[in-house]
Formats: sequence, C-alpha cells, structure tokens
Amino acid sequence: MKNIIVGQSGGPTAVINGSLYGVVTEGLAHPDKISHVYGMINGIEGFLNDRIMDMNALAENRELEFVRTTPGAYLGSCRYKLPEDLTDPVYPELFRRFEEKNIGYFFYIGGNDSMDTVSKLSRYAAGTNSKIRFIGVPKTIDNDLVETDHTPGYGSAAKYVASVVREVTADASVYDNKQSVTIVEIMGRHAGWLTAASVLARKFKGDNPVLIYLPEVAFDPDAFIAKVKEALKTTPNLVVCISEGINDGKGTFICEYASDVGVDTFGHKMLTGSGKYLENLVKEKVGVKVRSIELNVCQRCSSSMLSAADLTEAIGAGTYGVQAALAGKTGKMITFIRRQDHPYELSYGTADVNHICNKEKAVPTEWITGDGSDISSAFITYARPLIQGDVTVPTKDGLPVFAYRK
Amino acid sequence: MKNIIVGQSGGPTAVINGSLYGVVTEGLAHPDKISHVYGMINGIEGFLNDRIMDMNALAENRELEFVRTTPGAYLGSCRYKLPEDLTDPVYPELFRRFEEKNIGYFFYIGGNDSMDTVSKLSRYAAGTNSKIRFIGVPKTIDNDLVETDHTPGYGSAAKYVASVVREVTADASVYDNKQSVTIVEIMGRHAGWLTAASVLARKFKGDNPVLIYLPEVAFDPDAFIAKVKEALKTTPNLVVCISEGINDGKGTFICEYASDVGVDTFGHKMLTGSGKYLENLVKEKVGVKVRSIELNVCQRCSSSMLSAADLTEAIGAGTYGVQAALAGKTGKMITFIRRQDHPYELSYGTADVNHICNKEKAVPTEWITGDGSDISSAFITYARPLIQGDVTVPTKDGLPVFAYRK
Repeated sequence: MKNIIVGQSGGPTAVINGSLYGVVTEGLAHPDKISHVYGMINGIEGFLNDRIMDMNALAENRELEFVRTTPGAYLGSCRYKLPEDLTDPVYPELFRRFEEKNIGYFFYIGGNDSMDTVSKLSRYAAGTNSKIRFIGVPKTIDNDLVETDHTPGYGSAAKYVASVVREVTADASVYDNKQSVTIVEIMGRHAGWLTAASVLARKFKGDNPVLIYLPEVAFDPDAFIAKVKEALKTTPNLVVCISEGINDGKGTFICEYASDVGVDTFGHKMLTGSGKYLENLVKEKVGVKVRSIELNVCQRCSSSMLSAADLTEAIGAGTYGVQAALAGKTGKMITFIRRQDHPYELSYGTADVNHICNKEKAVPTEWITGDGSDISSAFITYARPLIQGDVTVPTKDGLPVFAYRK
Repeated sequence: MKNIIVGQSGGPTAVINGSLYGVVTEGLAHPDKISHVYGMINGIEGFLNDRIMDMNALAENRELEFVRTTPGAYLGSCRYKLPEDLTDPVYPELFRRFEEKNIGYFFYIGGNDSMDTVSKLSRYAAGTNSKIRFIGVPKTIDNDLVETDHTPGYGSAAKYVASVVREVTADASVYDNKQSVTIVEIMGRHAGWLTAASVLARKFKGDNPVLIYLPEVAFDPDAFIAKVKEALKTTPNLVVCISEGINDGKGTFICEYASDVGVDTFGHKMLTGSGKYLENLVKEKVGVKVRSIELNVCQRCSSSMLSAADLTEAIGAGTYGVQAALAGKTGKMITFIRRQDHPYELSYGTADVNHICNKEKAVPTEWITGDGSDISSAFITYARPLIQGDVTVPTKDGLPVFAYRK
C-alpha cells in the first residue's frame, strides 16, 4: 500500500481543481493499492516546508464536490523551479520526505514549468532506483503545450473570451449612429490561442470582432491603421481583438513602443499595454472615438463560463493520470488525442515529459488569414468542440459557492 | 386605437432589454387599445431622423424571446438632451411625428437623463393639451435614482461584481505564501452602490474583500495605507474594492492626484484611474506585490451573471408601465416599493418624473462602517434579495445567443 501526493503549480485556471478532483477521486477508488492521498500546499515549495493536507478527509465530507467547480488553485500554487543540477541536495531531501510519507505516486498539475519539475524528479528517481512514479497533468489557458491536442483550462478560457467579446460587441453597438473602435486585449504573451478564440464570438459573416491579431504574425502599425479605416466603412462600431504579446516580429513587443511615456507620481516608470498603445494610435491616426479594454484575471479564473467539455476532460486527465501511474508509467504527461471533430471524440494518452517541458506550441500560421488580421475556419473547427456544454456551479445566496482551505 | 413608441437611452445594462420585452409584450396584449408597438432606433435622436422599427414583427417571430436576455440596448441608445426651453422648435417637430404615427403612449427606458426627457415631453404635452401619455421606465446599474427602492439593472450588475470579486479572491490566494494586495476598481462616479455590492463576495467573517471604499466618504490616502498594513497581518493576500469615484471630500477625485503623470507617445495626457493610483501608492508605501484590476464594461453588459430577480423586475417595470399608461398616467416613472425583506416582497408604483430627474441617491452613510472602509449588514439585507436566482440564457455552439437588429 502506497500513498499519493498531488500538487498544483503555475497560474490558476477555471478547471485546474477539476484535475485535482480527478486525481483524488480516482486515487481513493483503489483502496487495495492507495491508502492516502495527500495534497501539497503551494506545490513543491510548500512540500519542502512540510505543508501538506490530507485529501481523504476532504472526500469524506462534501467539500471535494465544491472543489470540482472552484476556480483558482485549491491547494495553492508556486513558481519554484528545481535546480538543473540533479546532484543538488534538494533532491535527496525531497525523496527523504517522499519516503517518510510512503509516497508511491506523485502528480503535478501545471504548465510548462511544472512539466520541468516532473522531468527532473523522474530523472532523479531513475538515477537512484526509486520506485516512485511521477506524472504531469497538464493545465494552461495558453494551450501552448506540445504533444497534446489541447490543454485543460483552454476550453473554459476560450469560452469566456468569446462570450465576453460578444458582450462587448453588444455594448459597443448601442451608439451605432457614431463611429467607434473598441480594442480588446487578451492574455497570451507568445501564443495566440486565447485571442484566436475571439473569432467564435462572431454571430454572422462580417460581425465583430472584425480584426484579430496574434503574436505569431509580425504586427505592422501602418497596416493595422489601414485595416481599421477600411473596416469602419462597413462596421461603424468596430471591435478589434489583440494578444497582449503582439510584436513587430523582430523581438519588440508593441507595448514596448510606448515605453517612453514617463513616470508616475512616485517616479516609477509607467507601463502601457499593447491595447492602450493602439488606443492612442487609433485616436491619433483615425480620429474616431476609441477605447481599450484589458480582459483581466477572470480569463483564467471565471467559473461563470465553464465549458462542460473542458471540465470533463480536466477531471479525465486527473483520473487517467492515476490509472497510468498505477499501470507503471512514470516521467509522463497526460495528453489529449483527438479522434475526430464531428462528432467530437477524444482519448487520453501519455507522452514523455522530457519532450514537453520548455517548448511552446504556437497557432499554426496557416490558421491565420487576412494578412495576419483574421482567423481561419480550420481554427473554428478545432476550437468549437472545446467550449461546448454548460456547467452548473453550486450557488448559495445568489452567488457561486467556492471551496477554500479552512 | 393608438400606437406605442418605446426607446432606450443612456448606457446599457444587462436587463434593459428585459424592460423593452415587458413594454412590447404588454402593449401587444391589449389589441383592443393598442395597434402597433414601434421602437425608436437610438432613442429620441434616431426618432427625429425617422429611424423606427416595427416591434410587432419581432414578436411574431421568435426574436423577441432572445431580446429578453440580450445585454446592451437592442434598439440602440443616445445621449441626446432635449432643450430646457419648451418653446424650442424641436418640440412641435416631435409631436408632429408622434401624431403622424398615431402615437398614444411613449415609453423611455433609461436613467436620470432619460427621465429628464420624459419630464420635458410630458410638460410640453400638458401645455399643448396633447393626449399622449409619457412614462419613464428606470434602468441603471448605478442604482442612484430617487423615489424607488432600487433600479432594474442594479441587481445583475451587483451579482456580477460580487461574483467576480469572489473569483479574483480565489485567483489572488494561489500564492498565499507571499503577501499581496489586489485593488479592484468598480464603476460608480458619484454613488457607491455597485462597489458596496462587493461585500456580498465574503464567504466568512474576515474574508476578502477586507477593505471597501465608496465615493460617499472622503478618502484619506494615509488612513488607507494604515488600514492596508493592518489588514495584511491577518490577510496575506488582501483584496481591496474601490469605486472609480473615490475622492478627498473636497471635490477632487483620487485619480486626479495622479494627473501629472506625463504624456503618451503622441503627446496626449495619460489618464490614470483611482485603482492604478492606489496601486502605485501601495507599492511605494507598503512595498508588497500589488496589482490593480479595473472591472470593464462587462459590469453593465454581462449576461453570464443575470439575476433572475432583477430580470423579472425589469420586465415587470415595462409591463406595469404599459398598464399605468393605459390607466391614464403620464409624466411618471415606474418605481419599486419594497414590502419586506424576508421573504422579499416587491410591488410596483409610480412617481412624478419631475421629482426624479437630475437627482442622485447616495448610499446612506450609516451603511458605511469601519471608518469608511467597510459596509454594514443593513446594506447586505438590502442588496441580497436583488441578486437571487439564475437565468438560463439560450445558447448555441457553446455561446449565448444575443438578438441584434438585422
């Protein structure tokens, strides 16, 4: 009989706790092999400080059911990077603690950096003949992990973005007797997956968002202004969606173009986002009413637009992770394999975690059209299944009920 | 047999189309008295340019059902203010157009300025013995209209704000091994009703948002910093909610404190919000990790957090408006009269529109506690019934279906 330890790392998503739910419930479904499931509080960093909690207790009361639909990271997160050097004393220290807790299976739910942690621990284990199995469960709203069709967390974030852009379009259209431009800045520093999802907001051909810009294609301010002027002729209330990471293709982010804007009252340099920069550019060059909207952290932590497909798969990734570990796998990340688009069919698989960490998957350039200002129907075919289905989040007194550590 | 004309004015809300739905359905429910319901496109301004549409057709196909849960303003809005001078030629021009369309009943759904329009038109009608009846149907997320317990639009906006602040709290807590401050800036220039609703996000005593600041109480930056330092001792990941309109009590908005921040790349003066100013202040004086989040237009246009109570009342206000007009009332705004809190009971009434326009209702100062940094339980008793119940918005392909003018 062995125990499981599970942790969460990196930025939160709307369904990372779904994967936690999957690991815990599947772990406890094998009482012949698994005695206890422990959670690391604040990831591997908290574990090193002895901050763990017993997840069996959570499953015994109703609390685990609320964890399932709670956004954020129930166990807390960290951004701790293990040393490259596997002879560093932190490794024997970690494994001593694993032995102390009789850990047989280690699960880390996270993105790129978390897979790096799984890679290092599994390599150290191999080098020391440890029998502990290490599995990565993917999550990231950025959808930029390789070797998997998509990542848990992306579907709900994409649904949130598409829905909000549709709402912003409704809001922008109320004064349709006057021309206006609304620029929506969406998360994504290096990959434009989330911004691309804004195309799903279109209700009909030619509907907003008319222009969409991703970091994968070099951004040309002059060409942008020409596109805006052209689009205003047919769409008086224009909505433009941009990734925060749009850049000139030569290594400079567009937001850095505005770096000489001065200092705040305290002498700190003012930082301007790409959206704010383009707002000023449109004001200057086009002269119509313009505003920029930076979608905030709700992109990654809203439970109001959970995709049932995404939550189901996030839970499934956790469940499958436990099954894979019990079957002897280690040093793997759980992957999604798309069987077909219509009807959408998915199966789970595993990939060598060493092939995943420290790589980024960009939106294929053939999915970016309109001289870099639009998204193809191939992307829509890819993304639409991922936002399907609604999730009923438990409510009390008119508000969602979220689980939290007492 | 007379016709109805209905328009929308001012900023959008999540349920202003609910009131439109109420006016249209109730109007068409009296075929003995009402022949046609017309909609003004872009309010009174559009009407003056002959921009009207036939709402009967909309009711005959299924489209009106989608209007019911569509955020924004289906008919479009305007910010056109009628002249103070009732001898201005625009008045006979308007009434000539009313006669031409055989209008017997005029409904204007909006806030303060819209009630001013209803006031002027009804006074002009009285002076010229016109038999047309003018009714104002209230809407504003700001909840600042007098003579009514609350306004349609407030409940859904309050539910959205409370829900988002609860999500932001979940997001802020993931790195709870490090101190941080998150400042959430909420709409409300002069009245703090919407910001006060953030108190509903608290899951337990002492939970975030620990500090809440409204424009009704003079804001003291030094006292604020002392409160933040104190609060961080028990809440390492502190969430603070502020109204955009917090001010020093002497006529200066806090955001104006940062007015000397310099110009953008094009020489335009950079505007900084109150949240951004306080972010810089906390960075300077407290020295912990800090971020500010400006809740965007979704506060007023999200259909993801519709309050069933709010939508029902918004529709009811439209319905009751038609009934009041048919019963002979004119120059009135529909009001909400709260009968009791537990169980919540409401009835509709009317008030002289002249007593409403150009006045603002502030949050009672006795509901603001904690030296101006907290909200009392009396407010919670007031606000909680207004956010109850969920609304199922029709969806297609995983996204909400919104009505729009073809």
